[in-house]
Amino acid sequence: MKGFAMKKIGEVGWVEKDKPDYGPYDALVKPIALAPCTSDIHTVWAGAIGERTDMILGHEALGVIAEVGSEVKDFKPGDKVIVPAITPDWYSDAVQRGFSSQTGGPLSGWKFSNFKDGVFGEYFHVNVADWNLAHLPEEIPLEAAVMIPDMLTTGFMGAENAKIPMGGSVAVLGIGPVGLSAVAGAQLQGAGRIFAVGTRPNCVDVAKKYGATDIISYKDGNTADQIVEATDGEGVDAVIVAGGNSNILIDAVNTARAGSVISNINYFGEGDTLPIPRVGWGFGMADKDFATGLCPGGRVRMENLADIVKYGRMDPGLMATHVFHGFEKIEEALLLMKDKPRDLIKPVVIIDENL
Amino acid sequence: MKGFAMKKIGEVGWVEKDKPDYGPYDALVKPIALAPCTSDIHTVWAGAIGERTDMILGHEALGVIAEVGSEVKDFKPGDKVIVPAITPDWYSDAVQRGFSSQTGGPLSGWKFSNFKDGVFGEYFHVNVADWNLAHLPEEIPLEAAVMIPDMLTTGFMGAENAKIPMGGSVAVLGIGPVGLSAVAGAQLQGAGRIFAVGTRPNCVDVAKKYGATDIISYKDGNTADQIVEATDGEGVDAVIVAGGNSNILIDAVNTARAGSVISNINYFGEGDTLPIPRVGWGFGMADKDFATGLCPGGRVRMENLADIVKYGRMDPGLMATHVFHGFEKIEEALLLMKDKPRDLIKPVVIIDENL
Amino acid sequence: MKGFAMKKIGEVGWVEKDKPDYGPYDALVKPIALAPCTSDIHTVWAGAIGERTDMILGHEALGVIAEVGSEVKDFKPGDKVIVPAITPDWYSDAVQRGFSSQTGGPLSGWKFSNFKDGVFGEYFHVNVADWNLAHLPEEIPLEAAVMIPDMLTTGFMGAENAKIPMGGSVAVLGIGPVGLSAVAGAQLQGAGRIFAVGTRPNCVDVAKKYGATDIISYKDGNTADQIVEATDGEGVDAVIVAGGNSNILIDAVNTARAGSVISNINYFGEGDTLPIPRVGWGFGMADKDFATGLCPGGRVRMENLADIVKYGRMDPGLMATHVFHGFEKIEEALLLMKDKPRDLIKPVVIIDENL
Amino acid sequence: MKGFAMKKIGEVGWVEKDKPDYGPYDALVKPIALAPCTSDIHTVWAGAIGERTDMILGHEALGVIAEVGSEVKDFKPGDKVIVPAITPDWYSDAVQRGFSSQTGGPLSGWKFSNFKDGVFGEYFHVNVADWNLAHLPEEIPLEAAVMIPDMLTTGFMGAENAKIPMGGSVAVLGIGPVGLSAVAGAQLQGAGRIFAVGTRPNCVDVAKKYGATDIISYKDGNTADQIVEATDGEGVDAVIVAGGNSNILIDAVNTARAGSVISNINYFGEGDTLPIPRVGWGFGMADKDFATGLCPGGRVRMENLADIVKYGRMDPGLMATHVFHGFEKIEEALLLMKDKPRDLIKPVVIIDENL
Repeated sequence: MKGFAMKKIGEVGWVEKDKPDYGPYDALVKPIALAPCTSDIHTVWAGAIGERTDMILGHEALGVIAEVGSEVKDFKPGDKVIVPAITPDWYSDAVQRGFSSQTGGPLSGWKFSNFKDGVFGEYFHVNVADWNLAHLPEEIPLEAAVMIPDMLTTGFMGAENAKIPMGGSVAVLGIGPVGLSAVAGAQLQGAGRIFAVGTRPNCVDVAKKYGATDIISYKDGNTADQIVEATDGEGVDAVIVAGGNSNILIDAVNTARAGSVISNINYFGEGDTLPIPRVGWGFGMADKDFATGLCPGGRVRMENLADIVKYGRMDPGLMATHVFHGFEKIEEALLLMKDKPRDLIKPVVIIDENL
Repeated sequence: MKGFAMKKIGEVGWVEKDKPDYGPYDALVKPIALAPCTSDIHTVWAGAIGERTDMILGHEALGVIAEVGSEVKDFKPGDKVIVPAITPDWYSDAVQRGFSSQTGGPLSGWKFSNFKDGVFGEYFHVNVADWNLAHLPEEIPLEAAVMIPDMLTTGFMGAENAKIPMGGSVAVLGIGPVGLSAVAGAQLQGAGRIFAVGTRPNCVDVAKKYGATDIISYKDGNTADQIVEATDGEGVDAVIVAGGNSNILIDAVNTARAGSVISNINYFGEGDTLPIPRVGWGFGMADKDFATGLCPGGRVRMENLADIVKYGRMDPGLMATHVFHGFEKIEEALLLMKDKPRDLIKPVVIIDENL
Repeated sequence: MKGFAMKKIGEVGWVEKDKPDYGPYDALVKPIALAPCTSDIHTVWAGAIGERTDMILGHEALGVIAEVGSEVKDFKPGDKVIVPAITPDWYSDAVQRGFSSQTGGPLSGWKFSNFKDGVFGEYFHVNVADWNLAHLPEEIPLEAAVMIPDMLTTGFMGAENAKIPMGGSVAVLGIGPVGLSAVAGAQLQGAGRIFAVGTRPNCVDVAKKYGATDIISYKDGNTADQIVEATDGEGVDAVIVAGGNSNILIDAVNTARAGSVISNINYFGEGDTLPIPRVGWGFGMADKDFATGLCPGGRVRMENLADIVKYGRMDPGLMATHVFHGFEKIEEALLLMKDKPRDLIKPVVIIDENL
Repeated sequence: MKGFAMKKIGEVGWVEKDKPDYGPYDALVKPIALAPCTSDIHTVWAGAIGERTDMILGHEALGVIAEVGSEVKDFKPGDKVIVPAITPDWYSDAVQRGFSSQTGGPLSGWKFSNFKDGVFGEYFHVNVADWNLAHLPEEIPLEAAVMIPDMLTTGFMGAENAKIPMGGSVAVLGIGPVGLSAVAGAQLQGAGRIFAVGTRPNCVDVAKKYGATDIISYKDGNTADQIVEATDGEGVDAVIVAGGNSNILIDAVNTARAGSVISNINYFGEGDTLPIPRVGWGFGMADKDFATGLCPGGRVRMENLADIVKYGRMDPGLMATHVFHGFEKIEEALLLMKDKPRDLIKPVVIIDENL
């Protein structure tokens, strides 16, 4: 089978591999829609997870079941499925402690294009199919549904972890697709006023549709200062960090009021350490907590988020600014993600509408 | 001054009283919009809180500040305000324990038309004005804003207490104005599928606008059975009890899946005891918790809920089916609430648009 | 192999069966210490779970691994283990929703002597051995350790669910072994004053050793009244229901203050419905929540509770009032549990000290 | 009246002032036991809160009521009281949001020796006496009770915020009096294994009495490495940061397992920023949350913690290594705190046993 792979750090290309083996609880899946993620870019060009050789990329997919193991009960060949980016083992210490994404070690619920080949192949392997896959509702268009496996679950987690009081104020720092999902998630968690920090016109437009009430641009000055001023010197009840470099936590802390949560969904790719501002943090005593996490995966999460979309609570399809058709377009879509043109929110590749 | 009062159990009428006194932290307020509540009906005709003599009724109001005590800092005569139904003392044991509505004793955060004259007077007294009043945003129409003091804070509390998982399923039992607010609150707490149980056409219509995905009628059979069947035998992640008689908890428990929350916002007016079904409750072991509460009041809650409305997260004005004009129309509005015609959701009295 | 079984409702006796089969993730275990539970009595003599034929009883065990399936990694024949009463599937919807004891359906994490043969056999089957068994620390005496699988996890859950504020007041209604474990659990959750309701001298004595500060007896009048009076009319911050008949929730609600949690760990064996007192519950608005649950099982829970015992946080061995030696003594121990002599807290059967 | 004051940054001495005025809800209190705090040292010699002139120091006190305002109901002259370090306004936005210590602005619940004269005077002022003072139980020795106003409430908050699973593992970084209180608090929150990081023999001795199971010394190598190794490479479920310089969060993050809470009760006195280790924090995705706070004050907290001591849950008197007698000994006690001899845990000044 063919797959689009990281050949080594800094190099991508098509590879030919055997179809993956699978165990009695697992499934073999063919993709029907795919999306590249900024993490793929980090993986290849920043060496974020270290060297890999001919590893098939990708962890955002919808698929159709090709084959299932002997113990799989709820899925059969031909079923269309949502495949979460995070597929925990479920037989795991971390699951029992309540942190399923950390199953088997830190971040080890993330398997695709990390510990095994990803979803940018003609076939890919899914562990514990009954409990990591969800049936894809017919009502949801593919370009919307393909946001569920990573964008929505990550962005929504950012909002859930932020413990937003009903009607409380929120700032979302960064409005790429994860940040936009966090804006939508904040609205779905009862936020009142939502500050969205960003400048790209497409992103600003979608942010407003997802519930942002105030758009803040770095071009108008320090963003923390702007938000604090807009809130009469108080700051906001919750900050969601969805972008930025190593110093973004400084802004985040300075944007948050005394008694608040700073919820991080940003991947930090650089720097030995990440600075927290001492005075802004009240010398460690201002009740500004930090919440973190790796996005929840698993079947129930995917089913629940599919219901969010199916029942029209928000439309993730608005983020699919660039839709490609055909498996071979993965390369172009990935490179688009790397180049990040100003009008891009998220590229999507539809493999076959009729599958 | 004039006020519309409970003269004794079973009898209402206009009374003439002195303007209330007020202390240094308090305010004297004139109403600009009022709404009668089912609780007023319980108070008068069911004797719910016991005998009262010539007690002015009402606890849902918007007002304009007439006078303030010497220690009031944030409000001055002429300011338009939202007046919560619940006005805690804030100097209180219950506040420090995290239950501000129980300040000074069970349910004692509820003062209007309970321990003192209510808001259906030409003037009414507000304790601790700085911390129990909120400025009324100009953007919100009066018939929408007057839902904030009780309907929204109660209905939303029902949804918040229900700990709805993002995308989870919810059933709201009863879709009067409090139940409808709970439907809207469930959507604002991230619910996916929302079952609304009720039959009145106006209520059904608003329930759908507030996010209900399935309307369940007792006319089609046992409502718990219908919801369990619709969820493949599982039941829902959360149940909000917003109506019903003494036996409603039986339905609620049977509607909830193993591992869920049953959140009560219903006032139970009859019966020595309220039955829980033993088997449905898993003999006490099915992880079906009950959450209760008296709606949160106070300034911050009102400000936050005002933001919900101001930023268009939901429109409570849809519930104002009957809008009267003029202070003297309180009587008619209250009796309408008592008669509860089939097209009624909530009557509202606008005292003076220009105040 | 031999096992002590429920032959039918109302009848027990020894049976001869084949050793259980086991799958690749499972283990076959031989008991080294066992304890009968009140649930066994309910199962046999009250028909609590319906008719069963020749079903081996028991769900409280320590054991030694006899055989393991091909996929078991962390346990090998000869390892001594703690076997939780609740052994979830872990591949389950309920696990992903956070309710692992409800895996596969209400209460279905409870498998021993419910859906399959229990632990009162020469061998018994454990599903998902790596994630449902815990290594037995050498430091813990068998008669103490055998309390972990059910008594401690149930009693502690009662205290955890009660959300006791640091230094807050608690009432534990019923001080059999589960209630005593709840008393100890309350102390380990930061309780200040702990009221223990019971009269049996042995139980009272252990309750005091586990942290009870006040012993309340029904012989001195209504127990709720006594506790409310002792708390200056307020009631307690948390109530743990660990015994009583169908009416015990009336006492529980009347013992709790406005703004509190009533945490149930009682098995309700009788009555169609369980009454909640309407007025005591504040007509549904007094912020008196109910928490429920089936005790958590699984490996991590057992490991954590073993640490509680190993590090001397409490000594469950105090509850082992009657210690038998030899597998065949199960019958006598069970019948003792049925007869419940006044000096009994919990009978324990040590199979073989040297295993 | 006399008071021991910060005359300016770097200088202390006795001052003569008028007795404080007080309002209708306030009280005037005479100290009966006092303790200097490390914060006093930071205030004077590190200029932690900026310049102050002749400000009376101290915020840890037991007292006797001298005079009360007209509205004070529960306290009268002659009553002995516990005075919390933090005395919120209760009429406050932050209270309604659930962060009472941040009342009136970041950290502004801390008033003594910050915004007004502290407790090291012959008289001191307490705002909102009914809701910020607690009656001192006779059963508690003064040198134990004087730990409640700051040491216990801070240390316990560290443990409460850490969300320790029942039987879970905890590391407490730093075992001065606040860290020791956190060790005791961890045991009272259900911790199993407790690692205490420190070397001073008196502190180590008390740490063990308070429940520490493992003592970790920097002299044996990197402390994070030691704890990770002792936990088979996993790290602990919760870390409480109770000491250390600007870099201590690096150790804390590296000590915590994936899926854990790092609870800070350390005052950070130096550095513009506090570094978080990027890789140890899982690039922001390892589910290692940070909890912070300023210790809770107020009446209910003091009453609850007094119950902890009164009922023997832990004995804070063990920390009172140096007990002075007489008001004038405050100077000596404070300077002892500054010099920090190796055998010091906490100095206490008893003003008059017979007051």
